[in-house]
Amino acid sequence: MEFFKVVSPEEAKEALRGFRALGTERLSSFGAVGRVLAEDVHSPVDLPDFPRATMDGYAFRASDSFGASEAIPAYLEVVGQVPMGAAPGFSVGRGEAARILTGGMVPEGADAVVMEEFTSAPDAETLEVRRPAAVGENVLAIGDDLKKDELILGAGSRLRSQDVGALAGVGVTSVEVHRRPRVAILPTGDELVDPRETPCAGQVRDINRFSLAAGVIEAGGEPETEEILPDDLGVIKERLDQAVDRADVVLISGGSSMGLRGSHRLPMRRRSRSDGPPPWAKTFSR
Amino acid sequence: MEFFKVVSPEEAKEALRGFRALGTERLSSFGAVGRVLAEDVHSPVDLPDFPRATMDGYAFRASDSFGASEAIPAYLEVVGQVPMGAAPGFSVGRGEAARILTGGMVPEGADAVVMEEFTSAPDAETLEVRRPAAVGENVLAIGDDLKKDELILGAGSRLRSQDVGALAGVGVTSVEVHRRPRVAILPTGDELVDPRETPCAGQVRDINRFSLAAGVIEAGGEPETEEILPDDLGVIKERLDQAVDRADVVLISGGSSMGLRGSHRLPMRRRSRSDGPPPWAKTFSR
Repeated sequence: MEFFKVVSPEEAKEALRGFRALGTERLSSFGAVGRVLAEDVHSPVDLPDFPRATMDGYAFRASDSFGASEAIPAYLEVVGQVPMGAAPGFSVGRGEAARILTGGMVPEGADAVVMEEFTSAPDAETLEVRRPAAVGENVLAIGDDLKKDELILGAGSRLRSQDVGALAGVGVTSVEVHRRPRVAILPTGDELVDPRETPCAGQVRDINRFSLAAGVIEAGGEPETEEILPDDLGVIKERLDQAVDRADVVLISGGSSMGLRGSHRLPMRRRSRSDGPPPWAKTFSR
Repeated sequence: MEFFKVVSPEEAKEALRGFRALGTERLSSFGAVGRVLAEDVHSPVDLPDFPRATMDGYAFRASDSFGASEAIPAYLEVVGQVPMGAAPGFSVGRGEAARILTGGMVPEGADAVVMEEFTSAPDAETLEVRRPAAVGENVLAIGDDLKKDELILGAGSRLRSQDVGALAGVGVTSVEVHRRPRVAILPTGDELVDPRETPCAGQVRDINRFSLAAGVIEAGGEPETEEILPDDLGVIKERLDQAVDRADVVLISGGSSMGLRGSHRLPMRRRSRSDGPPPWAKTFSR
């Protein structure tokens, strides 16, 4: 019986791969947390787009510090200080150094930054460096984080808060995402009553509509719940057709077994032997 | 230096335990998915509130089937059928059985349900049972799922979709939850520009405001972002005071090191030996 065909979670997921694509919408990256990208996002720029110090200290030519040690420090002339948020406006030559803070732009001519902990300043113009620096030390080179045109996030990935930050860093503040799937939920069953009502004997409150709707919200969809449908094939078919037309996904609950197909609509009472065969005798046969 | 005091995640969490309680609001259980309960929720009813069949089959007295086997079945008289969603309206006596479906109300007098697979019906009024049933077999007794006044969810728990279903099952469709925390986000730094702008040399796009705001949304809070604040103690202090007044949590970013305290506001240029001590010489001392 087709009705009893239960599929495994793997089979269900496989079937969903053929799911028709949802439309898309453009949202601020902000409002798109948890949504699924409908486009590949590439970096429009190099990040950083200038060589950036990763420590507070001094920028200079690494070669000027080769061989420096606690016993025999290198001495450099401090020629300026790099402002935050602006180009230095000067370059650093041989034997020179510039004060720099984390995030500052490494001046032309300098190729390394030494942490201030490894230096001292015997006077305002002199820097003592007690450790050799390697070329590129404590410097984030152009494009080290992201190169221009590099793929940041692929279509189909779900946007997380850290992704929103990564996109902001390269100036991307809006994204094309799939719209939320509309999920129609159709509870069926003569025994069901709305949870807000008090069930009579033999009735039960409709749990599925509530838990499924909440689950759809949790999963990022938009639930559309129907009123409870009676166990009437015609009504169910009609509502199912309507739901399939307007929703992306239709969830229907009920019918966990073969049932008695309509016979339970007959008045129920204690039967006497003179009644003849019980009403379900015909419908209940395999 | 107080400024350099970094706390571990454990210390931070411990500090947050003293966090002042947020106000509460009443929401439909539905709209409260992901929210934190501000009340204990107890079951107002027994669930189920009638003995319920968990299989399709026949309800009867278990004692009538004791000793039944394939070779020597028990024979019972079928006296009726339990309707779905209503009380049976009859009872089952000794030697009698009633047809019942999953979820149906077990008639008075019956104390077990045998699966239809272990029965056959030689004629419409006769049931052949080929297996002994135990008392309570395939019957969910009153209160088996939840007893009246039993705690379902404790204050402080976060509502999941399955919880919404459990609450619906006992008729609870609205809950008291804590309101979402308002989280003010204050980015600071002269080098920062809005991500929508193109940074000049040495400037960087403000990532923190975007990723923190997105993270706050992810975590269930309501972000309130400020414009980027300059590295000006007076301005920062004023905005911080305002933010503390109106928000539940204030996140401030910037100041990752000791900095040069205002000296970077001085015009930056290549210094000549005749200038005297550089502007940062005084402020940069430990």
